[in-house]
Amino acid sequence: MIQKLAIIGVGLIGGSLAQALRQAAYVREITGCGRDEAHLQKAVALGVIDSYELDIARAVAGADMVVVCVPLGAMAGCFQAMAGHLADNAVVTDVGSAKASVVAAAEAAFGELPAGFVPGHPIAGTEKSGVEASFPQLFRDRRVIITPLPQSADWATERVAQMWREAGAEIEQMSIERHDEVLAATSHLPHLLAFGLVDCLRAMEEHEDIFRFAAGGFRDFTRIASSDPVMWRDICLTNRAALLGALAQFSQELEQLTALVERGEGAELEALFRRAKEARDRYANQLESWKASFPAE
Amino acid sequence: MIQKLAIIGVGLIGGSLAQALRQAAYVREITGCGRDEAHLQKAVALGVIDSYELDIARAVAGADMVVVCVPLGAMAGCFQAMAGHLADNAVVTDVGSAKASVVAAAEAAFGELPAGFVPGHPIAGTEKSGVEASFPQLFRDRRVIITPLPQSADWATERVAQMWREAGAEIEQMSIERHDEVLAATSHLPHLLAFGLVDCLRAMEEHEDIFRFAAGGFRDFTRIASSDPVMWRDICLTNRAALLGALAQFSQELEQLTALVERGEGAELEALFRRAKEARDRYANQLESWKASFPAE
Repeated sequence: MIQKLAIIGVGLIGGSLAQALRQAAYVREITGCGRDEAHLQKAVALGVIDSYELDIARAVAGADMVVVCVPLGAMAGCFQAMAGHLADNAVVTDVGSAKASVVAAAEAAFGELPAGFVPGHPIAGTEKSGVEASFPQLFRDRRVIITPLPQSADWATERVAQMWREAGAEIEQMSIERHDEVLAATSHLPHLLAFGLVDCLRAMEEHEDIFRFAAGGFRDFTRIASSDPVMWRDICLTNRAALLGALAQFSQELEQLTALVERGEGAELEALFRRAKEARDRYANQLESWKASFPAE
Repeated sequence: MIQKLAIIGVGLIGGSLAQALRQAAYVREITGCGRDEAHLQKAVALGVIDSYELDIARAVAGADMVVVCVPLGAMAGCFQAMAGHLADNAVVTDVGSAKASVVAAAEAAFGELPAGFVPGHPIAGTEKSGVEASFPQLFRDRRVIITPLPQSADWATERVAQMWREAGAEIEQMSIERHDEVLAATSHLPHLLAFGLVDCLRAMEEHEDIFRFAAGGFRDFTRIASSDPVMWRDICLTNRAALLGALAQFSQELEQLTALVERGEGAELEALFRRAKEARDRYANQLESWKASFPAE
């Protein structure tokens, strides 16, 4: 059980984790921390956190679990502010969507990385953000990837894993390099394509009349283009190398598709669509079999 | 009211239209036509159609409304088979996702286009196909684009519009050129991107392990990659010019995005994401205000 949980950044992810752990009776006391006092007051009023601090050093004092849930661009500042103020038994983790940059930020702030530092990433979220959008079931049947480092103590890794299990998630472990590649392909690239498509269509028409003729498929396809621009800016900047790799592969795919359309290669187009459909259908069936049923958004 | 409705191609769209018109009591008799007799027998057993013919000339005999719901690649053959067998008062329409090629196929088959010929396109569908997936509410609150030609008689255009209204849809009229451009941007391009993304990820990993880490956003983004490969092959081949235009615009957008990521241009990335998010949020709000609530898929 967690005695004092410090959530740095009480938004969709941090707020949902607080609520899930409270519901599981796995935490005694929750302190939130952030820059916007009105926002933190709302989180207290909503019962998501018990109290708040505006100062990170005070928030982490005496905490046995610190979860950093700020945008990737704010990680470095958070680590710097907590360095020297962590309890001896403190476990520190984060929820960033790109891990190499988080580790670099932690190394810069802490010098030698603490044995209690274990990066993590819940594969969960909606296109909404803010504590108002948080809910305790967000992590249920979702995956959380934890990426222990050479210096991470086993007890710390197990504490982070157990916390996420209590929140309802399944745990996967992998290296930070593998994490960043996988996420670039399955999440960062699709978000860029969705943002890009909407921006492209927006530019085509002065009055956006074109959106009137979009069907259900377009609505689903572009839902992720409603995501937070600052968060996605930071992901692009911090997972740049892996994202550029995924973008290059997709560009090749798009060139190939364009060439097939240009040359009217019906058989090859059909074969490509069939391969993709089979992979997508297998994925949908696996979702079922994993019982990884996502809540309706 | 329609006395005899001939549905050529009794799949998701044709089957749903038959059911909707039956529910609205706007049709007396429905004959289905197709190449697969077992499939047509199933459509009769499901109560979607009253009877069937394997021969198009016999199916359209005496029909005052003929709706061609076959893949775009099969349109030409259908028109050829019905030429010379239509009733004098017959209205002929179709549901193809690309209109210029349908008109070309009709011109080739009929010579002079009949006054009763009015192309159309319901902006509705799911990633599923086949008569088993059809349901009478498919067109409720959806848009149907009709693209009357210079030779189309007003009474025929009105008959097609009224049929779709009875099925629950709203009618929009535009030129075939405008239709093909709009659909290339809002539907054909997104489908190609979804097929391409899934194919790209599939190629990255031998055992498709990568899909395990995909979150809800990916599921939504790639749902349309489960669509029928033959239908989408035909759309690519028949709407080639407009689709290549949309692909070129999107390629430029992707190059721009890649350059911003490469150069680490945070402010510009954020501005682009914000523009896209605002456009997507306006679109989502408009969907609400149009009461164009799509059924859960």
